[in-house]
Amino acid sequence: MSIVVQKFGGTSVGDVERIRRVARIIADTHDQGHQVAVIVSAMGHTTDELVSLAGELVETPAGREFDALLITGEMVSASLMAMTLSSMGYKAVSLNGQQAGFLTEDLHNRARILEIDTGRVQYHLNNGEIVIVTGFQGINSKGDFTTLGRGGSDTSAVALAGALGAERCDIFTDVNGVYSSDPRVVPQAVKLDEITYIEMLELARVGAQVLHPRAVETARHANVQIRVRSTFYTDDMGTVVVGSIESGTRPVSGIASDENQARVAITGVPDQPGVAAKIFGSLASRNISVDMIIQSLNKQEINDIAFTVSLNDLQDALETLEKVKTEVNAESVVYDTDVAKVSIVGIGMIDRPGIAADMFEALSKAKINIKMIATSEIKISCLIQKEQAKQAVQEIHKVFFKDEDGQSIPLVADQKVGY
Amino acid sequence: MSIVVQKFGGTSVGDVERIRRVARIIADTHDQGHQVAVIVSAMGHTTDELVSLAGELVETPAGREFDALLITGEMVSASLMAMTLSSMGYKAVSLNGQQAGFLTEDLHNRARILEIDTGRVQYHLNNGEIVIVTGFQGINSKGDFTTLGRGGSDTSAVALAGALGAERCDIFTDVNGVYSSDPRVVPQAVKLDEITYIEMLELARVGAQVLHPRAVETARHANVQIRVRSTFYTDDMGTVVVGSIESGTRPVSGIASDENQARVAITGVPDQPGVAAKIFGSLASRNISVDMIIQSLNKQEINDIAFTVSLNDLQDALETLEKVKTEVNAESVVYDTDVAKVSIVGIGMIDRPGIAADMFEALSKAKINIKMIATSEIKISCLIQKEQAKQAVQEIHKVFFKDEDGQSIPLVADQKVGY
Repeated sequence: MSIVVQKFGGTSVGDVERIRRVARIIADTHDQGHQVAVIVSAMGHTTDELVSLAGELVETPAGREFDALLITGEMVSASLMAMTLSSMGYKAVSLNGQQAGFLTEDLHNRARILEIDTGRVQYHLNNGEIVIVTGFQGINSKGDFTTLGRGGSDTSAVALAGALGAERCDIFTDVNGVYSSDPRVVPQAVKLDEITYIEMLELARVGAQVLHPRAVETARHANVQIRVRSTFYTDDMGTVVVGSIESGTRPVSGIASDENQARVAITGVPDQPGVAAKIFGSLASRNISVDMIIQSLNKQEINDIAFTVSLNDLQDALETLEKVKTEVNAESVVYDTDVAKVSIVGIGMIDRPGIAADMFEALSKAKINIKMIATSEIKISCLIQKEQAKQAVQEIHKVFFKDEDGQSIPLVADQKVGY
Repeated sequence: MSIVVQKFGGTSVGDVERIRRVARIIADTHDQGHQVAVIVSAMGHTTDELVSLAGELVETPAGREFDALLITGEMVSASLMAMTLSSMGYKAVSLNGQQAGFLTEDLHNRARILEIDTGRVQYHLNNGEIVIVTGFQGINSKGDFTTLGRGGSDTSAVALAGALGAERCDIFTDVNGVYSSDPRVVPQAVKLDEITYIEMLELARVGAQVLHPRAVETARHANVQIRVRSTFYTDDMGTVVVGSIESGTRPVSGIASDENQARVAITGVPDQPGVAAKIFGSLASRNISVDMIIQSLNKQEINDIAFTVSLNDLQDALETLEKVKTEVNAESVVYDTDVAKVSIVGIGMIDRPGIAADMFEALSKAKINIKMIATSEIKISCLIQKEQAKQAVQEIHKVFFKDEDGQSIPLVADQKVGY
């Protein structure tokens, strides 16, 4: 009998009515002849409420006790879901991260899963039970609860699907799949039937929020087929995330923008070997991720080095660079927060020259100035002025999806949209 | 170094401000040179909220999943308390029922503690840490969480104190000790400095709610010294519950009333051997506790048998008796819910004749009619009309505590008073 893992996020189990709806989806999957293991997140804003409660008591909640607090949210929704299924006549059991065998690193608040001992999950599945597992959590070697950080429940689901050898992993969310762009920005955005892991990874990196990169990476590693589906439109089988898709379909899969960016430059850097290593080594040692690096060679063998960082890391980056500036005898450190990064991602662009030119052309026609450009095999990113980000995405979308009809997108009240 | 176990109920940790206050009490005890292990209940009405959430989803929440849900309340308060202590500069760690080694029966919703493996608690105590343990919960032999039922956290505390060989077990509550009667009913009620386990057990049985009988029984068995203290007036060392107290102190320790009672009678029962066994056997097989049994012999060898049951059990009791009536060829089943049971309890009455007479005299003077009487070695109970219960307690209190001055009783906003 094939195993299906299904994951339901906080919005999907946000209240009693939604828990009932989700229980029906799970029961239907079971009725179709599958063994079903389910990962649930905490109900609605439970986690946020626990975070704020802790925040009233201590300045920066963190570490072991913070994890011991947060894991209770998923325990509540898991047991409620198991109860509901039982009351519908199904055999169901809830398991917390420890009972489900999720062994993680010792690190708290953002531990990685090291291994899943599926013994108990498998036992209950073989016993005809639907198994409800708390997402986002595991235990470390000391027997203490840990949490997996942002996007943790997606990772829990994909990792469990991999460990169980599941036929597929359904990630239920409030959109019915992965779209070519954020439908709130681009009403003509189209739902993709298929997308590759690598495109999902790149899209996540440039601002799309459908699946957490760690979950996608886990799926790619374990070769788990992910389906991104809607809790509210279950007839729609959503978007499948797979290893590869037939070439020749489309050059671009997704267009995203990220307004949480800052551009930083260190100017007047002497052109000597080892200077760039010093700059980026210092940033790396403070755990600051850097993107879109551009080095421009001036006259007199003096360089300007510019790059982008996430807005959250800006302050740390500036402090680090001020020190580096003195050490390498550079001129000044400047920054710009009025920027957005607009990116196109598509595995199809590998074989197709001219995609970048099409993108620049679209921006140019709309009189949008490009401040920086960065490209990879399957991604082109442009840094532009922040207030032009939405327009840029719309113009670029017109170019790459010009002939397709927009699909109507089912919206629900408190929808978290895909991008 | 001596170990002190301290237990804080839901009201004591009801909000952020109160958690801070309790953390200060714990820290002070630690500063006095004790190793401190703490049992906490869920914050305020958390448990009730979880119960009602489950009640919206299933008709009668029960069993394994209900326990898996309820235990999260204590996990939240335990981790918040450990965080708060850490932020005050103390080393603290929270342990859930499993981590703290509470092994219980397999039974859910009201499991008994079988054994406490104190290894991990002891390890942290020896390491200079304050250990915060979730009350009300443990795990069974399958590794599933169980709960201990009503009064569970008191039992957790006393059992842990016993297992650790603690110097004492402080039960913090919203009153500053055990009173001679409910201060809301009898303003002259006095706080007792000492009371025996056996008196506490009897008082709990006749309506006082200071400590759960199971906790008292556990304390008696393990010879744990309990102190009932106030979270809000910590200078007051409260009431000590001990094995024995010097005789000659007082004849009566407490006066309580219980309005949650019904009187049931089966009349016209043929006076044959085995009939009473049949009646009470049937009730026992439905788990109905019976109190104050009176059998009156009529003429013609026909009996009336009357007894009291808790109001919650009345419907079940009547159904059972209707069947029994036919079987034993009795005449009718009648009942009365307009009753209250007023009781006096005191180990001192063993050596003193005339205590019962004093009680009846007090009721008689107040023109209160006695419907039934039941006595034991250290308790006398009278069933009277419900609306006279408060007056009865006041009149009886005057007789046995006539010369003592009333102590002013510190009241807090949402006080759960001792009786």
